[in-house]
Amino acid sequence: MDQITQVTHIDNVKLTEDKKAVVFIDQTQLPNRTVYLTADTEEDCFDAILKLKVRGAPCIGIFAGYAMYVLCQKYQDKPYAEFAAEYKRQSAYLNSSRPTAVNLSWALKRMEKIVEESSEVPVGEIVEKLGRECVAIHEEDIAMCRKISEYGLSLIKEGDGILTHCNAGPLATSRYGTALGPMFLGKEKGMNFRVFADETRPLLQGARLTSYELQKAGIDVTLICDNMASIVMRNGWIQACFVGCDRIAANGDFANKIGTSGVAILAKHYGIPVYTLGPSSTIDMNCPDGEHIEIELRDPNEIKEKFYAEPMALKEVKCYNPAFDVTDHELLAGIVTEKGIVRPPFDVNLKKLFG
Amino acid sequence: MDQITQVTHIDNVKLTEDKKAVVFIDQTQLPNRTVYLTADTEEDCFDAILKLKVRGAPCIGIFAGYAMYVLCQKYQDKPYAEFAAEYKRQSAYLNSSRPTAVNLSWALKRMEKIVEESSEVPVGEIVEKLGRECVAIHEEDIAMCRKISEYGLSLIKEGDGILTHCNAGPLATSRYGTALGPMFLGKEKGMNFRVFADETRPLLQGARLTSYELQKAGIDVTLICDNMASIVMRNGWIQACFVGCDRIAANGDFANKIGTSGVAILAKHYGIPVYTLGPSSTIDMNCPDGEHIEIELRDPNEIKEKFYAEPMALKEVKCYNPAFDVTDHELLAGIVTEKGIVRPPFDVNLKKLFG
Repeated sequence: MDQITQVTHIDNVKLTEDKKAVVFIDQTQLPNRTVYLTADTEEDCFDAILKLKVRGAPCIGIFAGYAMYVLCQKYQDKPYAEFAAEYKRQSAYLNSSRPTAVNLSWALKRMEKIVEESSEVPVGEIVEKLGRECVAIHEEDIAMCRKISEYGLSLIKEGDGILTHCNAGPLATSRYGTALGPMFLGKEKGMNFRVFADETRPLLQGARLTSYELQKAGIDVTLICDNMASIVMRNGWIQACFVGCDRIAANGDFANKIGTSGVAILAKHYGIPVYTLGPSSTIDMNCPDGEHIEIELRDPNEIKEKFYAEPMALKEVKCYNPAFDVTDHELLAGIVTEKGIVRPPFDVNLKKLFG
Repeated sequence: MDQITQVTHIDNVKLTEDKKAVVFIDQTQLPNRTVYLTADTEEDCFDAILKLKVRGAPCIGIFAGYAMYVLCQKYQDKPYAEFAAEYKRQSAYLNSSRPTAVNLSWALKRMEKIVEESSEVPVGEIVEKLGRECVAIHEEDIAMCRKISEYGLSLIKEGDGILTHCNAGPLATSRYGTALGPMFLGKEKGMNFRVFADETRPLLQGARLTSYELQKAGIDVTLICDNMASIVMRNGWIQACFVGCDRIAANGDFANKIGTSGVAILAKHYGIPVYTLGPSSTIDMNCPDGEHIEIELRDPNEIKEKFYAEPMALKEVKCYNPAFDVTDHELLAGIVTEKGIVRPPFDVNLKKLFG
C-alpha cells in the first residue's frame, strides 16, 4: 500500500525578516548543496537571474517583485519624481537580464504600475504598497499553481507515464509547480505516476532539479538523456508529455526550454498528447505567433565547459547555444492555466479565455 | 579562395611492428589527450571494446580481426584441435563484449571461417593466413569508406548544412569514415559544408570526437546539444542528416547511437532527408526488422556521474541508459553503402543489392 505523502514545500524565494534583502536558493548548486543566497543590490539581483541562480519563469517573476521592493527602499526618502525615475531605471535594468520569459516583465510592470498611479501618494506609502504587491504576486502564484495542478491531474490517470523536459516544479515556481504540479498533487492524493525526466542539456535542470524534486517527494522518476525521449515513447512508456512555458503566443505557439519542440514533434509521431502548463500571465496576446518570440542565445561554454571536470570539445569549436525553442501550436493538445484547459483552435480559444 | 586540403589520415587501429599486440587510440581520452594503448591479452581486448576505448562499428570489426590474430599466436604451437578450440573460445568471448553492432561478429566469423576451413593445414600457416585476413579486413574497410564517401557526396552540394549524430568519422572506421566521409572527401575536393554535430549524450562522442575530427580538418562544424536539433532544422540550416549505423535490418530499420530515431522523426517533420551510411556488412538480412535488434543497456552512472566534476543528480535517482535506438525505415530516405544508395522500398531493394 502506498502511503499518502505530504509533500514538503520549500520556499525558494522570500524576503529576509527585516525585508531589506531577498533570500533564495542558488539553484545552480543543486542537487549537491542547498545554499541560500541573499541579494540587496541591483547588480546581485540582475546576476541572480542572468546566471540562473533563480530560474523558472514564474519564480523569476516572484523574485523580481521582491527585488524591486528591496531596491526601492534605498531611495524612499527622495521626492516622488526622483523616486519614480530611479525605480524605472532599476526595473528596466532587471528586465534586461533575460529576454524570453514574459513573467519577468509582467511582474515588473505590475509593480511599476503602482508607482505610476501613485504620484499623489507619499513615497513611504508607495513603498508599503509595493511591499504588499510583491507578497500578493507570490501568494497568487501559489494559488495558481494549485489550480494548474488540479487541472493537469484531470488529464492523467493512475499509473500513467509522464515525460517532462527541463524543470517546471516547485523550484521554478512556488509550492506545487506547473508541469510537475499534477504529479505532486497526485502523490498527495495517493496516486502513482512514472515520470521520465529529460536531463535537459546544457545546464541539466532536469537532472539537477526535476529528478531531485521528484525523488525527494517519493515519486517514481527515471532520468534520461534528452536524446532518449524517442525510445521511451516507442517503448510505450509515455502516456502524456507535460512541459512548462516561458511565453505563449496568441496562436498557441509557445517558447519553453530548448528541446521542447523536439519532444513535441516526437510525441506527435508516437500519438502522445503534449500539454504545456503555466499561469495565464505566460500568455502574451500581443505576440501573434512563435516567430515573434525572441530566443535568448547563451554562452557557448555552457555546452563545452560548464559542469565538466575537463573540456568536452576543442576550445575553438563553435557552439550554437539557444536557451529556448519555439514549439508549434499544431504539436500541442492543450494549454493548462489556472483558468482551465485551452484546446485547439488556440487563436479562437485563447481569445475566449480572456473574453 | 579555399585551399584544397589534404586531410591528415590517422591510423586509429594497427598492429605493433612485431605483430604481437594491437595498438589503438584510447578514444575515451579525446579530445584532451591523444593516447595510444596496446593490447595483447584477451582481457585487454575485451575491455577496450566494452569501455569504448575502441568504438564505432567498423572500427570494432577491424580491431577484432587484429585482436584475434594477436591472441592466436600465443597457442600456435598447439595441435590443430586444441588451437581451433582455444580460438573459438576467445572469439566467442570477444563477441560478447558488445551486442548491437554487427561488424564485431561479422569480422570474428570471417576470421573463424579460415580456422574452420584449414583443418588439414599446419597451424603455423593458419596463423599466417589469419594475419593476412585481418589486414585485408582493414584495407577493404579503407576502400569501402572511400566508396561510401563518394556516394554520400553525390547527395549534397556546396554550402549545404549537414546534421550528424554521434561519430561515424575516421576514428569510428578507417580513413574517411562513413557518415562524415562525404564532408572529408568534399573538403579535399575544395567544397565547403556546414556541419552541425549533436554532442550525443551520455558519452559525448559528437562533442569529443566528431567536432574534434571536423575541426582538425578545417571543416565548418558547430556543436549543439542533442535537444537543439529541432531548432537548427527549423532555422532552415539543415539540408540533410547523415548518420552511421550499427545494424541494418532487412526492411531498412536500423540501429544507431541512441537518439538517431529522434533525429529522423524531427527531420521527417521538417521535410529533411535522412541518410544512413555504412558498409554493407552492417546489413543483417537475417534480421527481419528493428524489433529483432537487441539494444544494449549501459551503466546508469554514464548519465549521472561520468565525465562530470561532481554528480549531476542524486545517487538514488534511476536512470534508463540504452546505448542505441531503432529508427523506422519509414523515416529513412536512403541507405548508402559501398555498393550504392538503396532507396525505399527497402525490403525489395535491399534484396536486389544482394541479388
